[in-house]
Amino acid sequence: MCFAPSMINHYGISGKIVVVIDIFRASSAICTAISYGVKEIIPVKEIHEAKKFKEQGYITAAERDGAIVEGFDFGNSPHAFMDENLKGKTIVLTTSNCTRAIHDAKDAEQVLIGAFTNISAICDYLAQRTEDIILLCAGWKNKYNLEDSLFAGAVALRLLDQYELDCDSSIASMELYKLAKDNMLDFLKNSSHRQRLAHLGIEKDIDYCLQADSGNKIPIFNGYSISAMETTGDHSLTKKSVSAL
Amino acid sequence: MCFAPSMINHYGISGKIVVVIDIFRASSAICTAISYGVKEIIPVKEIHEAKKFKEQGYITAAERDGAIVEGFDFGNSPHAFMDENLKGKTIVLTTSNCTRAIHDAKDAEQVLIGAFTNISAICDYLAQRTEDIILLCAGWKNKYNLEDSLFAGAVALRLLDQYELDCDSSIASMELYKLAKDNMLDFLKNSSHRQRLAHLGIEKDIDYCLQADSGNKIPIFNGYSISAMETTGDHSLTKKSVSAL
Repeated sequence: MCFAPSMINHYGISGKIVVVIDIFRASSAICTAISYGVKEIIPVKEIHEAKKFKEQGYITAAERDGAIVEGFDFGNSPHAFMDENLKGKTIVLTTSNCTRAIHDAKDAEQVLIGAFTNISAICDYLAQRTEDIILLCAGWKNKYNLEDSLFAGAVALRLLDQYELDCDSSIASMELYKLAKDNMLDFLKNSSHRQRLAHLGIEKDIDYCLQADSGNKIPIFNGYSISAMETTGDHSLTKKSVSAL
Repeated sequence: MCFAPSMINHYGISGKIVVVIDIFRASSAICTAISYGVKEIIPVKEIHEAKKFKEQGYITAAERDGAIVEGFDFGNSPHAFMDENLKGKTIVLTTSNCTRAIHDAKDAEQVLIGAFTNISAICDYLAQRTEDIILLCAGWKNKYNLEDSLFAGAVALRLLDQYELDCDSSIASMELYKLAKDNMLDFLKNSSHRQRLAHLGIEKDIDYCLQADSGNKIPIFNGYSISAMETTGDHSLTKKSVSAL
């Protein structure tokens, strides 16, 4: 479990599965978009890159400091992606933390996107794998944040039977999740990011991002774009391929 | 609160007080040495630097992976520094994490060394200051560790009346400390670093490093060496100087 992208160089990601986490709100938005039928999301690090795509006619979403960047169609609100008109479409996305973390992880064996919105799908998948796993919290501007580590703690707790823990960050996050799980909203009320987002009037998003399993797709990054993993929703298929190893 | 030196570049240390923390065992050892009357400790990052000092006749201590490096007088066991013969002496020290973290913090307004062994002295001092404070956990090889964040959480809890929290790492660590404080040994039994140290037979050190206030000195780094802050043990003097500001 890596608490922020600034630490990822010390984790040796080669050959491992990296799950990128940015609960408020980008990874929740990506999982939602993919579950609602968006064909693919192209994550880019910088606003100027997203602008180039926009000039080419792409649907583009850009968020900085929690708000939609002027001139773009969306920010990172999951609700913006619950749109029938986006089914089958390609969306270009840049966010403060998550899209950079996704690119930071690109040399891993697999790069998945995780959020409470798809926690069961992703844990069921990970439980069947044999690779080491790194839960990469996007955090906030290269620092730790609470909501990402709560999710990582929830995932670690679900995988305890299948995996050994390799770090204290997992222990800390599992303890925090156990403390918080019955009322995460309340637990997070003093967190820096919730306060940062409070003036944006996105309480509806916050509620949504903490609800488990609104979708069952697993977004996977192929080095260029994110789409639904093919085996998602068909765990028997994945099981077969694992047992065939 | 910065969980590992790998993240410190994102914290803007200029003008701030940085407290360097490495509970198992280097910061505990430094606090102990200074409390027992060692005149100064010269922290160096690399073993080859320490060797040069040794060749010049300095008392040298070197630890890597928890053990004393061959050819050196000590490692980072606090008990090694409880020695009447070291009173008034200068010691050169290099450790896996802490001495590097101290140098990483050298551009701060003040660099202090903190441990449970001097927690009241350091908190009393910090409570009287006006600068922003960064609690810098040395961690383990640039990753998070549990014991350093427990100490940082304990300090944050003591300073809540005097300081505003600026980050989620403080919230997380205070919650963890509240969970752990009545039995830290037990809470840490599964932590990676305790397991790492288990084969070294240093349970006596572990016990000692978790005991509060065996000393009352505040070690301060002047960019070259660490010695006792002059105002330590005379809080009235510090209070006067603060009220005169």
